[in-house]
Amino acid sequence: MNVAVDAMGGDYAPGVVVQGAVDSALEFGIHVTLVGDEGLIRDLLPSDISSDLINVHHCADAVQMHESPLKAVRQKRDASIRVAFELVKRRKANAVVSAGNSGATVAAGILTLGRIEGVDRPAIAGILPGEKGRVILIDVGANVDCRPTYLFQFGVMANAFASSCLGLGNPKIGLLSIGEEGSKGNEQVRLARKLLEASPLNFVGNVEGRDIFAGEVEIIVCDGFVGNVALKLSEGMAKAMTRSLKAELIGTLSGRAALLCGRRSFENFRRKIDYEEYGGAPLLGINGVGIICHGGSSARAIKNAIKLADSYVSNRVLEKMVLQLKDFNGKQALA
Amino acid sequence: MNVAVDAMGGDYAPGVVVQGAVDSALEFGIHVTLVGDEGLIRDLLPSDISSDLINVHHCADAVQMHESPLKAVRQKRDASIRVAFELVKRRKANAVVSAGNSGATVAAGILTLGRIEGVDRPAIAGILPGEKGRVILIDVGANVDCRPTYLFQFGVMANAFASSCLGLGNPKIGLLSIGEEGSKGNEQVRLARKLLEASPLNFVGNVEGRDIFAGEVEIIVCDGFVGNVALKLSEGMAKAMTRSLKAELIGTLSGRAALLCGRRSFENFRRKIDYEEYGGAPLLGINGVGIICHGGSSARAIKNAIKLADSYVSNRVLEKMVLQLKDFNGKQALA
Repeated sequence: MNVAVDAMGGDYAPGVVVQGAVDSALEFGIHVTLVGDEGLIRDLLPSDISSDLINVHHCADAVQMHESPLKAVRQKRDASIRVAFELVKRRKANAVVSAGNSGATVAAGILTLGRIEGVDRPAIAGILPGEKGRVILIDVGANVDCRPTYLFQFGVMANAFASSCLGLGNPKIGLLSIGEEGSKGNEQVRLARKLLEASPLNFVGNVEGRDIFAGEVEIIVCDGFVGNVALKLSEGMAKAMTRSLKAELIGTLSGRAALLCGRRSFENFRRKIDYEEYGGAPLLGINGVGIICHGGSSARAIKNAIKLADSYVSNRVLEKMVLQLKDFNGKQALA
Repeated sequence: MNVAVDAMGGDYAPGVVVQGAVDSALEFGIHVTLVGDEGLIRDLLPSDISSDLINVHHCADAVQMHESPLKAVRQKRDASIRVAFELVKRRKANAVVSAGNSGATVAAGILTLGRIEGVDRPAIAGILPGEKGRVILIDVGANVDCRPTYLFQFGVMANAFASSCLGLGNPKIGLLSIGEEGSKGNEQVRLARKLLEASPLNFVGNVEGRDIFAGEVEIIVCDGFVGNVALKLSEGMAKAMTRSLKAELIGTLSGRAALLCGRRSFENFRRKIDYEEYGGAPLLGINGVGIICHGGSSARAIKNAIKLADSYVSNRVLEKMVLQLKDFNGKQALA
């Protein structure tokens, strides 16, 4: 196993990214190839780190956060994200992890590795902390406009990922809308519902915003605009609420006593709503493995994203996804 | 001042609705006309309540939650929500409050009172608890598909409402998208941005899901599909997080001690994230005042929604909105 990590991608790159890679190598024994400016990276690596755990693949360029993804990926042939996916293509690595420009990661993944059969549009699967466990929200930003067939394929891809990588057997799938009835929502949602209903997926119908965290479904399908808003809203809200409560408690003597008494409970709670447990969101539908991390990822998030990439590869998610897509698209055509 | 309250609308109607009306009458001295089944309502009213505070307007029908809004409102001429808006039209009431089928409230409001000049589509303005104060999210469900001009008008309407009713002078307005850059988002968002930029509104550009609670803007414009998902997601998440933390704390002795020590801080926090403070969301753009409450509203939410209706009328929001729409649409045409 070797995970190619885009060392130049992310708000705190390369420092935090290198740190996360070192941590994952030491903690999980996963081999990492750091892709980027070799000089910068070597300066950040511990001098005693074994090349059995980490090596560096030099490249001179990188896509910046503000750049137009497709244009940058096309023009910068030596950009770290592109070189990282090239390593996968040339079978020098099994997966890519990047906290850089997420549009560029999507573009580089598709451009370099292509799509798997039966997928029109690869999509990003956000893994959110729900009340009863993890919830997959797909798509969280790769596709702002989606046809009903794309939404159906998102459901199939997430189903394969959730069952083979997250251990969720026959996960319940909901379609994000603004009312439970099939008549609710926009045109695209109404048509996608029919496709999902006719499929062998464990589709339970429409779900609403409030259901994302309630945990009655394990997979929620939506377009990348709504999904991106929902993901960022929930991350922002978890942080804002935690900050707000902490400020209230710190403000009084009795509140500080409460913080002290309840520190174990607060810690458990923090872990429950932790957005960094999986570190990143897999890009499903490309012919390979790519994990997209937050621009502001911490070393811990990077470390966990590398672990997720490892688990994605070890569990042969890609092979299972290809089979399910063939199977379900076939049944769809017959229905 | 007289507020017509749809006594038959809501999951817990008429009991909870009547209770909320009585509470608002007694606490704020606002006169309420309860619209619905007179026999049922009279049984719920305290025998000693003065008709100077509450009267009942009988009607035989009501729109149910599962009904198709437009069809039900058209066919049921004696439905409580329709009769309530008729009272406003006949100047027997100044505003309507309903926790019933929200689509039916939108339809009845438009059908009975019409739209104000310069508004293509009335929209629902959700009032959310942000970290630095209230944030208006518009639209939260009246329009699933929106043209750029609708989004622009939402901004103007919310601006008038926020400045004249919530006391937010020259509120900062953001456009909900999936990236700060103008190039991000879908076609509709990119075009709406240009309209907002060219207007005299205090428009600050695109905002993302994470900004909804950060409080850097006071008004966030979006289509009704995304807005509805965001509103329900944030309500659901606030409840889920509170429940989750409470469960952690109650589970251990030290946690229970923390709950006891920190009870004042927890109470302050609860109040800060309280979705019932305004009780309902105004339907902006109809030629009159309508407040839409949650189906599951408590008596307290109904009470506060009636107070909001009262404040909407007293502050002459409608007149100011009409003026701003004329003014801004004119400048828009010149730009």
